[in-house]
Amino acid sequence: MTTGGTRAALAIDLGGTELRAAVVEETGRVAAFAATSTDALGGPDAVIEQMVALIGTVRAEAPDAEIVGLGVGAPGPLDPDAGIVVAAPTLSGWRDVPLAAILSERLGVAVQLENDANAAALGEWRFGAGQGTKSMVFITVSTGIGGGVIVDGHLLHGRRGLAGEIGHMTIAAGTERCACGGVGCWEALASGTALAREATKLVASGTAPALQRIVGSERVSGRHVAQAAAAGDARSIALLDAEAHWLGIGLVNLLHLYSPERLILGGGVGTLLPQLRGTIERTIHERAMSAFREVPVVGAALGRNAGLVGAASLMLEKRP
Amino acid sequence: MTTGGTRAALAIDLGGTELRAAVVEETGRVAAFAATSTDALGGPDAVIEQMVALIGTVRAEAPDAEIVGLGVGAPGPLDPDAGIVVAAPTLSGWRDVPLAAILSERLGVAVQLENDANAAALGEWRFGAGQGTKSMVFITVSTGIGGGVIVDGHLLHGRRGLAGEIGHMTIAAGTERCACGGVGCWEALASGTALAREATKLVASGTAPALQRIVGSERVSGRHVAQAAAAGDARSIALLDAEAHWLGIGLVNLLHLYSPERLILGGGVGTLLPQLRGTIERTIHERAMSAFREVPVVGAALGRNAGLVGAASLMLEKRP
Repeated sequence: MTTGGTRAALAIDLGGTELRAAVVEETGRVAAFAATSTDALGGPDAVIEQMVALIGTVRAEAPDAEIVGLGVGAPGPLDPDAGIVVAAPTLSGWRDVPLAAILSERLGVAVQLENDANAAALGEWRFGAGQGTKSMVFITVSTGIGGGVIVDGHLLHGRRGLAGEIGHMTIAAGTERCACGGVGCWEALASGTALAREATKLVASGTAPALQRIVGSERVSGRHVAQAAAAGDARSIALLDAEAHWLGIGLVNLLHLYSPERLILGGGVGTLLPQLRGTIERTIHERAMSAFREVPVVGAALGRNAGLVGAASLMLEKRP
Repeated sequence: MTTGGTRAALAIDLGGTELRAAVVEETGRVAAFAATSTDALGGPDAVIEQMVALIGTVRAEAPDAEIVGLGVGAPGPLDPDAGIVVAAPTLSGWRDVPLAAILSERLGVAVQLENDANAAALGEWRFGAGQGTKSMVFITVSTGIGGGVIVDGHLLHGRRGLAGEIGHMTIAAGTERCACGGVGCWEALASGTALAREATKLVASGTAPALQRIVGSERVSGRHVAQAAAAGDARSIALLDAEAHWLGIGLVNLLHLYSPERLILGGGVGTLLPQLRGTIERTIHERAMSAFREVPVVGAALGRNAGLVGAASLMLEKRP
C-alpha cells in the first residue's frame, strides 16, 4: 500500500464471458482498466489466477494510487458477509468459493464481495444516474431482468443477500412461462429475450416485411425491432409499445414497493429508453397511485462500468 | 417524567373508527389501555382533544411508568420525519396536520409519528411474530391489503415514507380493476373485499345453497365463506382456494423483492391462515425460486395491539 497518492480502490467484475478489473478513484474515475475472456471452464483456481494477473496489470498502470481495498462483483447467489460465491451458473465448478478470503490472502488487501447487479446499482447510485438520491432502483433489462435496490441510503440485502430479484415478480399471472419455473414473471414478458421472442414470431408469420428486411439472415433481436420502428414500421412500433407497456407495469410495482426517488434503466433494452419512454410514462401515469406518478425514469449513466465502479465503492466508502 | 419506574412509552393508534391509547413497557407489555370512537367528522382539533384525554387516562393508570415519549400510528400518507399527517382519507379535515409538534407541545413529551401499517409491522417485529429476524414483511389483509417491510434491520420508508404499498402491485394485469385505479392489483384479487365480492357473486348465482344458509340475511363476508368451507361446502372451499392462490402469488413477489426471513399475515383474512395455508404453501413452492421456498408464512401474534405496541417501540428504541 502506497501513501500520498490519490485514494482509490481496486475492482473486479466477474462475468461469465468477460473478466474485468480496474483501479477506481474516490471520484469514480477509472484510473486503470484491463479485461480478458473469463476461463469459464477452467474452474475457480484458473479464474483466480486471471484475477491476480489483471490486478497486477491495473496496479502497475496506476502506481501512485493509495489503494484502500478490493471490491468484487460476481454472479449471485453469493453471501456478501461471508465473502462466498455460493453458485455461479455460467462458471464451471464455482460452488461455495470463499473468494474474498482467497483474494485477500493473494493480494494483501481487504476484499468485499457483492452480487453483480447490486454492484452496478451501487455504481449508478454513487457515481452515475442515481447520484443525490437516498432511494433508487437500478433495473438492468437484457437477456433477463435484474437489479439492485437502495432504500433510505441502504443497499437491500435481505435473507441470504437475495433481495431485489425483481425480474421474478409475477405481473401477469397465467401468461408466459418463465425460465425460473414461474408464470407471468416480469422477465418472461419484458426482457430482451421476451422482445426477441415476440419479434421472431412476427417475422415467422411473414406479415412484417420491413422488420424481416432489417433482420436479414441474423438472429432476431430487440435491436432489429428498434431499428425497424425508427424507420417507421408500424408492426415494430407496436412490438416496442408492448415491450414498454410490460416494462411500465413492472416499474409501477417497483414504485409501490420501494418508493424510490428515481428508476434507473440499464442493459441492452435500457438503451432503447428514448423509444420506449412515451409508453412507459403513460403506463406509470395510468397505473401508479398519484403520489408515485412524478418519479422519473432515467437511463443508466455508467454503461458497462457500473459494476466495476460500484464494486470499488464498497471499499471507498469504508473509512479507516 | 417520573424516574425509578419501569421504562415505558405512550402510544396512540389513530383509526378512522376507533382511537386507542396505551402505556407500553419496554418488554412490549401493555400496562394501560384506553379507547374511544374517533370523532372522525370533528376535524383535527376535536380528535387531538380526544388524544390528550386518552393519554391522561392511561398515564393515570400506570403512574409509576418512566415515560420516554409518545409514538403515534396514523393513516398514511404521512411524513414521519416532519411528523405531519399529510392526508387521512377516513378523517374529515385532516390535511397537513403537524400532529407530532402539536402533541409534543400539549403533552410535554417527545413524539414520533409513523404510518399505521408500518407501526404494526414494527410491533410484530419487536414483540410479536417477527422477533429475532433482521428482515420480515408484515401483511395485513382485510378490506384492503397493506403492510410494512423491514429489511436488514431497517423499516423501509423510501421517498415520502411511501415504501411498502404492497396491495397495489400488479400481479395479474388485465383482470380486476382496483379501487386505486390500477388493474390486477393484489388488493383487487386477494383482499377480504375481493373474497366477499366473489362470494356474493356465488350466492347470487343460486348455486351455493350451503353458503347461502350460513350467510342468511347478513352481508356476505369472508368469515361466512370460511365457516361454510369448514363445514365441508365444496363451493366455499373452492373460493378459499382461489383466495389462497392469489394471496400466495403476492407473497411470492414479496419473497423475491425483499427476501424476508419470515412473512407475517395479519388482518381479518390473516386469521383464516389455518384454512388457507395448504394452498398458499403450494403456490409458493410452485412459483418461488428455490432459494426462497422454505421461508415460513406465520400468523400475526399481536392482533389489534400490533400498531400500538409498534408505535411505542419507536420511542422505546431511542436511547438517551
